[in-house]
Amino acid sequence: MPAHRFPLPDDAEAAFYRAFQSGDLDAMMAVWDEGDDIVCVHPLGPRLEGRQSVAESWRPILGVRPRLRVSLSHVRRTVAGDLAVYSAVERIAVREDEGVRTSVILATNVYRSTLAGWRMILHHASPIRPVRPRAPAVVH
Amino acid sequence: MPAHRFPLPDDAEAAFYRAFQSGDLDAMMAVWDEGDDIVCVHPLGPRLEGRQSVAESWRPILGVRPRLRVSLSHVRRTVAGDLAVYSAVERIAVREDEGVRTSVILATNVYRSTLAGWRMILHHASPIRPVRPRAPAVVH
Repeated sequence: MPAHRFPLPDDAEAAFYRAFQSGDLDAMMAVWDEGDDIVCVHPLGPRLEGRQSVAESWRPILGVRPRLRVSLSHVRRTVAGDLAVYSAVERIAVREDEGVRTSVILATNVYRSTLAGWRMILHHASPIRPVRPRAPAVVH
Repeated sequence: MPAHRFPLPDDAEAAFYRAFQSGDLDAMMAVWDEGDDIVCVHPLGPRLEGRQSVAESWRPILGVRPRLRVSLSHVRRTVAGDLAVYSAVERIAVREDEGVRTSVILATNVYRSTLAGWRMILHHASPIRPVRPRAPAVVH
């Protein structure tokens, strides 16, 4: 399945966000490593381990319709040997009845080089404390 | 400074939590890599980059008195070549007037092998959504 081979860490990272954005669970799980030592933390969620827990956790997220839009910024990448670590800021926009709600999430993604190409072994996502809007000035 | 050399990833990880628990900023910064590509995320905080921002962020945390107690569990470690990735559950206990308050934090720590031993390049810590206590049963 050449579509599931990620010869470079960047290929795996791009495939992860493509699957996230398109809502494709099979494509998402093709990015994750086959080992049972994989770890996934969704914002404010518990630590999930193993493919079954990870797949179950993504199902409702990827099922959101209309699809959410994910844009990345401030990407930092460290690759050394068989591990690659990415740190990025995700802006996740969800269309709701009242308009578009955007969340800012910090993500750490780790990929490992395997015989099947680079595969994700860790995703740790967490929210930034919302900045309280200034209290409106009191007009006397 | 042999005390600042961490020949194994586990040495650096142990030194990180020793510095965290003892409130020693110098020891903490001796664990962090000298490179400006280091990244630190405290629970719900923004992404901090570079030694100066990282050191400033730890100062108030390490200054808490009486010292907080940090205990680790569910540690998972992946080492490959020059990178080591740890995932763990931190239980942080703070003594307050009303008693001891414990927070459960998920941490991802990444270390890089350098000429000065293994050094931390990333710390990503985030809280788990508190589980709401069950509403007390209504007694008629």
